[in-house]
Amino acid sequence: MRDILPDEAEVRDATAGTILSVYRRYGFRRVETPALENIQLLTRGEGGENEKLVFKVLKRGDKLDLAQAASEADLVDLGLRFDLTVPLARYYAHNHARLPKPLKAVQIGPVWRAERPQRGRYRQFTQCDIDVLGVRSEFAEIELILATTEALGELGLPDLTVRINDRRLLVAIARWCGFAPDRHDSVFIALDKLDKVDRAAVVDELERVGHPADAISRMMSLFAEFQPDLGLAWMRERLKTEMDAAAFEALARIIGVVEGQAAGRFRIAFDPTLVRGMSYYTGPIFEIGSSRFPSSIAGGGRYDEMIGKILGQDVPATGFSIGFERVVSILLERPDGRGRRDKRIALLFAEKTDDLRMVLRAAGRLRAEGLSVSLELRGKKRGPQLATLSAHGFEGFAEFDGTEQPAVRWLGDAGR
Amino acid sequence: MRDILPDEAEVRDATAGTILSVYRRYGFRRVETPALENIQLLTRGEGGENEKLVFKVLKRGDKLDLAQAASEADLVDLGLRFDLTVPLARYYAHNHARLPKPLKAVQIGPVWRAERPQRGRYRQFTQCDIDVLGVRSEFAEIELILATTEALGELGLPDLTVRINDRRLLVAIARWCGFAPDRHDSVFIALDKLDKVDRAAVVDELERVGHPADAISRMMSLFAEFQPDLGLAWMRERLKTEMDAAAFEALARIIGVVEGQAAGRFRIAFDPTLVRGMSYYTGPIFEIGSSRFPSSIAGGGRYDEMIGKILGQDVPATGFSIGFERVVSILLERPDGRGRRDKRIALLFAEKTDDLRMVLRAAGRLRAEGLSVSLELRGKKRGPQLATLSAHGFEGFAEFDGTEQPAVRWLGDAGR
Repeated sequence: MRDILPDEAEVRDATAGTILSVYRRYGFRRVETPALENIQLLTRGEGGENEKLVFKVLKRGDKLDLAQAASEADLVDLGLRFDLTVPLARYYAHNHARLPKPLKAVQIGPVWRAERPQRGRYRQFTQCDIDVLGVRSEFAEIELILATTEALGELGLPDLTVRINDRRLLVAIARWCGFAPDRHDSVFIALDKLDKVDRAAVVDELERVGHPADAISRMMSLFAEFQPDLGLAWMRERLKTEMDAAAFEALARIIGVVEGQAAGRFRIAFDPTLVRGMSYYTGPIFEIGSSRFPSSIAGGGRYDEMIGKILGQDVPATGFSIGFERVVSILLERPDGRGRRDKRIALLFAEKTDDLRMVLRAAGRLRAEGLSVSLELRGKKRGPQLATLSAHGFEGFAEFDGTEQPAVRWLGDAGR
Repeated sequence: MRDILPDEAEVRDATAGTILSVYRRYGFRRVETPALENIQLLTRGEGGENEKLVFKVLKRGDKLDLAQAASEADLVDLGLRFDLTVPLARYYAHNHARLPKPLKAVQIGPVWRAERPQRGRYRQFTQCDIDVLGVRSEFAEIELILATTEALGELGLPDLTVRINDRRLLVAIARWCGFAPDRHDSVFIALDKLDKVDRAAVVDELERVGHPADAISRMMSLFAEFQPDLGLAWMRERLKTEMDAAAFEALARIIGVVEGQAAGRFRIAFDPTLVRGMSYYTGPIFEIGSSRFPSSIAGGGRYDEMIGKILGQDVPATGFSIGFERVVSILLERPDGRGRRDKRIALLFAEKTDDLRMVLRAAGRLRAEGLSVSLELRGKKRGPQLATLSAHGFEGFAEFDGTEQPAVRWLGDAGR
């Protein structure tokens, strides 16, 4: 866990503001769930490994009986959410009668995971999820990809590429290669590592967990043969008998329509090796990255069965998660990355001798010009005071001179 | 705890946005502390009664030893913050070397209290605190009052009155009346109820806890004699020997300067019966209300000793807390209160027959005109679909007609 200092808080606010405004243009609406959920919801399996990382909250008052407690489960009733997906499913189940259908939801908020502290990872961090609940058509994916690339573009992230695949295509590949149908998950877990390790290491893992050598080699040659410019059509030709035609056509339509709208703002590419970690995906999956930065910036996919498990009634769903902390750290490292904050200046005055009413009037005038004006007592030494102001991000200053419009002078970057 | 539905989320976002933008104009900067703090910090006394309401977090891994745990304290190491003041003091103590001095901080974020559920009170709610750390001069109070009335004004809250008093003046009154110096706190606790109960009930309470009858009657006649238009000067004349001259002059200056800037936007009035609950206040205290709504909207005061208790080094401090949930509930009840959200329309299309590329182009055109456009599949029956759209807050709709610029039609309020 960590404190957010003012410079970073400004970038975070501007980032959240840009994201919200783009999705609002697309008709998405913000929803908020509480930080605490019932412990049962957070440990029923939908959260995978993250469920081991829940911060659990002690029962209170009479409900807490320390003497009788046999295990942890007797002591706790609530937990801090570890993601925004499980709470959204609960939110939809709880409120669906009062919500628009379909629901196009955007969430930005903190989540908590009791991970071992390590560099760049915190136990509280912000997630940003955008979901469409109630649309079975692939036009939901098309909208999500267009809105998300637009949001990342407005944040100034360059060279975006959308990689796209489909869980059903992965299943078709696994079947075509001859992997045992009940062991596909472990094939995908190994395949998911192709991003980080080389092909030999993936083959090693597949062998180690006992998959047949011929299935492994068939899959590796399929991927070796596949070239990005061959595209989806080539893969369809290869998998013919294994692949569901409707799934294929939906994927082709997403790629085709999105490509037609990209207009040079980003690229979209079919990538048959894309897996995405979570096992709840059921259809198209996608990830956005930039050639300028390692690791992906956003990712998501269709998860048609998850809400049904909580609501007891099928609700098709697909969504994107933007790596909010990732985006903020990229923006913080860029010299122009401080976002669209106001110009900040200090108005220096001497409390004992200056007419405070006139000082306030001068500040009001400068604020009316669109400046952020902080009244600051004039220090004894001018040089060090200006250096301190500059170090704390003030871009300029004015010295109160008895008039309503003291001159603004800009500070260089020297002091930073 | 509760879910925030889209209509309310919009009002909350707009409210927070307005507040942040006004304080930023005044040179305030946003800071953020984590939701979880060490349990020691949350139970060391600064939080008063709220410390009994902490949600406590179970230790994790090896640190949790259920068999050896003798009491609750052995089981927990973290807690959810119950306010933003104690965390701010910890934040300042922790980061002061990297923070501007003075620090003008604005915080908006959730806090948690394990209260018994009751109407209109939730166990997670948002607080909004604005603090100036490191300024001993009353010009900090002047800025805070001016910025806060401006923020509430921009939110559209009418007929604002600032009531102001000083903790040192309350002490002078208690001394002048003859209350025992070590029992002033219980005098103020009774006095604080004058807002809710009549004078007789306050007298009853003072008698019941054993204060001398002549001190009680002296105080009640002082307040009976005091009339708002008599102002501070009258009270000074009365208390002469008991009241610190510098404290008096600072209070008079705050009232005088603020009055000079009010320009009809709000009123400021000295109120010698104003107490404010928390015992950590040390100087001027203030509260903002509106004649149109019961209970106050914002309040605060100077607390020069609190940060020193955590940092071990005196830091003068004064701050305001805006009743964020109170403001949101007022805005939600007003017909025009939905804030400055975008105009939301639905663009209806038929997935099977319409050209999706052209539909997307039409949506882009409408968005470029500043509308929030949600693509919606055309329903079987037009009337019911329009009624549903209206019920969910859509202000208008367009039907895709094969062109890039379908006509927008506005929906009445009939369906809501």
